[in-house]
Amino acid sequence: MAEEFLTIGVDIGGTNFRAAVVDKDGTMLAVEQLPTPSNVEDLETALEKVVRHLCDKYSTPQRPIIAVGLAIAGFVDETRTRVRFAPHLPWRNTELVHRLRRRLELPVIIEHDANSAAWGEYFQGAAQGAGTWVLFALGTGIGAAVMHEGTIYRGAFGTAPEFGHLTVMPGGRACPCGKMGCLERYCSGSALPLTAQDLIATGCCAESKLAKTYANHPEEITGRAVVRLAREGDSLAQQVIEDMATWLGRGLALVQDVFDPSLIVVGGGVSRDADLFLTTAQTVMTRSIVGAGHRQVARVVPAQLGGDAGMIGVALLARREVGTASA
Amino acid sequence: MAEEFLTIGVDIGGTNFRAAVVDKDGTMLAVEQLPTPSNVEDLETALEKVVRHLCDKYSTPQRPIIAVGLAIAGFVDETRTRVRFAPHLPWRNTELVHRLRRRLELPVIIEHDANSAAWGEYFQGAAQGAGTWVLFALGTGIGAAVMHEGTIYRGAFGTAPEFGHLTVMPGGRACPCGKMGCLERYCSGSALPLTAQDLIATGCCAESKLAKTYANHPEEITGRAVVRLAREGDSLAQQVIEDMATWLGRGLALVQDVFDPSLIVVGGGVSRDADLFLTTAQTVMTRSIVGAGHRQVARVVPAQLGGDAGMIGVALLARREVGTASA
Repeated sequence: MAEEFLTIGVDIGGTNFRAAVVDKDGTMLAVEQLPTPSNVEDLETALEKVVRHLCDKYSTPQRPIIAVGLAIAGFVDETRTRVRFAPHLPWRNTELVHRLRRRLELPVIIEHDANSAAWGEYFQGAAQGAGTWVLFALGTGIGAAVMHEGTIYRGAFGTAPEFGHLTVMPGGRACPCGKMGCLERYCSGSALPLTAQDLIATGCCAESKLAKTYANHPEEITGRAVVRLAREGDSLAQQVIEDMATWLGRGLALVQDVFDPSLIVVGGGVSRDADLFLTTAQTVMTRSIVGAGHRQVARVVPAQLGGDAGMIGVALLARREVGTASA
Repeated sequence: MAEEFLTIGVDIGGTNFRAAVVDKDGTMLAVEQLPTPSNVEDLETALEKVVRHLCDKYSTPQRPIIAVGLAIAGFVDETRTRVRFAPHLPWRNTELVHRLRRRLELPVIIEHDANSAAWGEYFQGAAQGAGTWVLFALGTGIGAAVMHEGTIYRGAFGTAPEFGHLTVMPGGRACPCGKMGCLERYCSGSALPLTAQDLIATGCCAESKLAKTYANHPEEITGRAVVRLAREGDSLAQQVIEDMATWLGRGLALVQDVFDPSLIVVGGGVSRDADLFLTTAQTVMTRSIVGAGHRQVARVVPAQLGGDAGMIGVALLARREVGTASA
């Protein structure tokens, strides 16, 4: 009966947080979504409330909920007990595991959100059985995780790996991080409008629907509009996607050269539209790596768990870490 | 008496190869240097000759030579038995360990040259006791090695990590590798003349000794001349060094962001002049990483074993791998 228990996975984003009851196969029995409060007390109260509610409703003596995992969009320290800094969350250098364990009266684990998604893809998604592999998640920015022989590579201080803010174009587009020319200014969901604006400013493709629609308000272009118009055959929108695909290829080449994985899983919200850009990205990657023709290269595949990967992954990780001990 | 044995380390470069008899402390009892033959048969014959010569002279029943380690400038496969490809050596997809073991009648290990240097710095140099750390070797190009918890990180196919040919300036300087804008075109011994030529072409510093000396033959500028003139106070030469230091800072920031080590050891031939550029490089690195101020960063130190690191390192590695079994 040791396998007959459940865990809760919580994905805490800057705008909303979502919590799911997850079984041993990664199936979500229930999901709750709530806005993320902006101060520590309200956030922890909201977490407690939703966890207690899910326990009341789904935890039974035959199939108890035994642990909670939290996926955090921020720096988690190398011991995975403390949140050092999270730009969109109120915790600052907080011993989160200790605090929440007392409050929730359940074992708690925390994990960086990209690492959580990597656990999800590793346990139940596109990376099952992979040895050395990289999750490259394209959303508003770029998140990434490296797994090596069944463990997450965290570096010495828990901040590895960071790809989104590598300088790929010296003196290039300004980034909210304070630097210029960061990879995610060219390759992410939020890069699409920037590229569209740049191309419109050059006067190219004046006949395209994208250019005409936003001629007077290019700042209102969204990534979703670019994707939709590209699917409708708009030439400028397709050019924007092609530009992102080229930068993604360069980014993936960097991942290959630096980490030499056997598999790269492209995840994140933007990966829903992988069919639009992954072929170009792979072509560019193959010609951008060092020693092409004299080395094996990683397969590149889309993620399988979509936006639930983090929540499912951290629930399964909590299951593995706590369940083994309690089984 | 188990510790009383010796090993031979061989560093096989494209021009010369060097072999040393090394004791348990990394001390070299003897060194031989010979030109590297350009075909497989002559090269293996030369290796056999020098190893037999060193064994005859230094191996005694009280202190036998028990193994040979070879540091290879090329792709070594992930099992460390086969040389896949080495641009300046004749081996192509060769089961080298097997071939040489029969020929030398001694246990043989092989290791990538940057990894060999990393073992040297780890066993007896600047990285003793380091957990997660990176060797960043500046020579004609850039070599690098990553160690994590006492083992070399090799990636899935044995080619990790590659920093020298990451594209850091799209459309930038042409590289012999066939790409453009590779890091080592800006940050290495061979980058110094390129930067000097570019600056001279802009007409800047026409009064500098470097500019005057090479006005009609800028293609004859060498890295050594730049370093010497910088030490003599030449403004253009100092500007060239400063440019390399800036690119080194950016390269080290990339290493920090991607691998998050606790220590970076700057080695290679150019590191002899670390006093000229390491301070600037560290300043640039600190402002180029993501999340500066919210994370710990690696210490950056010069290597300690200089050009002998690879030879000593691979000898000590052979000692560890073979000696433990035979002791």
